[in-house]
Amino acid sequence: MPLADTTEPRSVVVSRHTPLGPGSEFDRIRLALARLGPRAVGAGDDCAFVPAGGEYLALSCDASVEGTHFRAGWLRAEELGWRAAAAALSDLAAVAATPLGVLVSVALPVEWPEEQFADLMEGVGEAVEAVGAVVWGGDLVRGERLAIGMFVVGRLVGEPVRRRGAMPGDGLWVTGRLGGPRAAVAAWGAGREPEAAARARFARPEPRVAHALWLKEHGAKAMIDVSDGVLPDAAHLGAASGVSWTIALEALPLHPAIEGALEAVVSGEEYELLAALPPGFGPDQAREFEAAFGLPLTRVGWAEPAGREPLVRLVRDGAAVEPPFAFAHF
Amino acid sequence: MPLADTTEPRSVVVSRHTPLGPGSEFDRIRLALARLGPRAVGAGDDCAFVPAGGEYLALSCDASVEGTHFRAGWLRAEELGWRAAAAALSDLAAVAATPLGVLVSVALPVEWPEEQFADLMEGVGEAVEAVGAVVWGGDLVRGERLAIGMFVVGRLVGEPVRRRGAMPGDGLWVTGRLGGPRAAVAAWGAGREPEAAARARFARPEPRVAHALWLKEHGAKAMIDVSDGVLPDAAHLGAASGVSWTIALEALPLHPAIEGALEAVVSGEEYELLAALPPGFGPDQAREFEAAFGLPLTRVGWAEPAGREPLVRLVRDGAAVEPPFAFAHF
Repeated sequence: MPLADTTEPRSVVVSRHTPLGPGSEFDRIRLALARLGPRAVGAGDDCAFVPAGGEYLALSCDASVEGTHFRAGWLRAEELGWRAAAAALSDLAAVAATPLGVLVSVALPVEWPEEQFADLMEGVGEAVEAVGAVVWGGDLVRGERLAIGMFVVGRLVGEPVRRRGAMPGDGLWVTGRLGGPRAAVAAWGAGREPEAAARARFARPEPRVAHALWLKEHGAKAMIDVSDGVLPDAAHLGAASGVSWTIALEALPLHPAIEGALEAVVSGEEYELLAALPPGFGPDQAREFEAAFGLPLTRVGWAEPAGREPLVRLVRDGAAVEPPFAFAHF
Repeated sequence: MPLADTTEPRSVVVSRHTPLGPGSEFDRIRLALARLGPRAVGAGDDCAFVPAGGEYLALSCDASVEGTHFRAGWLRAEELGWRAAAAALSDLAAVAATPLGVLVSVALPVEWPEEQFADLMEGVGEAVEAVGAVVWGGDLVRGERLAIGMFVVGRLVGEPVRRRGAMPGDGLWVTGRLGGPRAAVAAWGAGREPEAAARARFARPEPRVAHALWLKEHGAKAMIDVSDGVLPDAAHLGAASGVSWTIALEALPLHPAIEGALEAVVSGEEYELLAALPPGFGPDQAREFEAAFGLPLTRVGWAEPAGREPLVRLVRDGAAVEPPFAFAHF
């Protein structure tokens, strides 16, 4: 779709907000956007799009907060930094932007040793370097609990892939294997140390930057990164695009540590990509993706015309399945 | 000074960090920057500078954290939003950038009613609108304590005013009257409601955006916004520029609510501008500024060659005065 009817640098590419899916967090955002009126423009995608020099910059922010996203003792300082940066960089991947740089805003408990803060920032630096970007600066304040605010800037060549754009008949595809982060959190919650592979999926998620560019080149029509879980994130894609998704549980690519597909669809903080690809995209193309990246790309569902709730229906071998409870911030 | 020897969009304008002044917070940042090595570029000014389309964007972030920057009950939700946004926008003013847009990252206690979050965001929207910018988006998560991370983007026409650039002989000038925010915090700390004018200086600070452009046009060589206090912030200007400041306490423009100049030099969160102006800038120009903005512009000190500690010396009627204790995050 045409991105902009203006090249005036004060304007963002899209002045209308992209509709968000259901959930108490998004009810709060909808209410706030209604109150902001014309003082807010172009919200609701994984990034904001800002014209700059004939191209577009993609901007996003993402907070990692102790007690919400992790608990003290789960991760080392450098893992906390990597994870916070990777989660934010994943928003750039979700729109097929190439990361340029980040700012890091840290609220740090006063009892943290100086070296431990340097470890955290080194983790940020590693995640940022891994996608070819740099740390531009940041902000450090005292806080009772650790909170890391990441602000990321990427460059768009051509148009972004947005949450809107999926059409009935499109396939719903996901990168990687789902469930590792949820299995890790479940283990910690039960007082156990997670198994190594699941722990790594939680501690060092990888923003799928190159994968996103590949998907865009191969026709991705809408995309989101899996931060809340495939089920709630597919609902956002559905709300934005005006389609309803059917997800076949037996098709889901599962991480070995997760119990089953009903757990995997609500595994958040995966930072895998969930993309709408046209009907012509099939197993041959998926094999090309896997050969290029060493990561599976799996068709897990398809789009139908919307118009009735829910935005996502789960089926197993064709029979409807009750959706599980997904994490909500509020 | 020349800003960039490259127009490659992956590079920031300045690859070397600007030296920071003394303090435990800045020791932590120095250590982290040392560990980051080439993974971090161009830190140490009020903003990062990123080339975009033949111009430069200025980027900054700033966190407002309950328990650190304010306590529950001091401010209404819309004031919390205004204040967080104004504090971050003040970093754009400090480099003489024109605000374009912001992202807002909020960690919100689960017990906050939806309407109260909308009030907070309305305060953000008002502050952003007041400087001609818009809200581009953001991020909302649950947090035990309220924390607001603001990410601000501005546009630079020509070169920014940076923290470096002051030279021996330059005057040190400050906008507005100092001490209001500290008087307000002192009143709350003593269990009293602050007087209205001091409370307003804390609750609704005004980023000096237009003032900064005027100062740049009139020769400002180095600038910083007063977030920690004139004394510690002058030390940053001194460290960055390689000069030592002498501040004449009797010259300080005082807010009526503050007890004296020794209190005013450590009053933080003023969001006034502290600028190095050349020797030829004098009372006539200051009167022009005051006529244009209805705000005083006062010469409070002067630069001498550095080379000895401290970076800032306080005098009263020519006699040295022991510096007071300034707030430090760590």
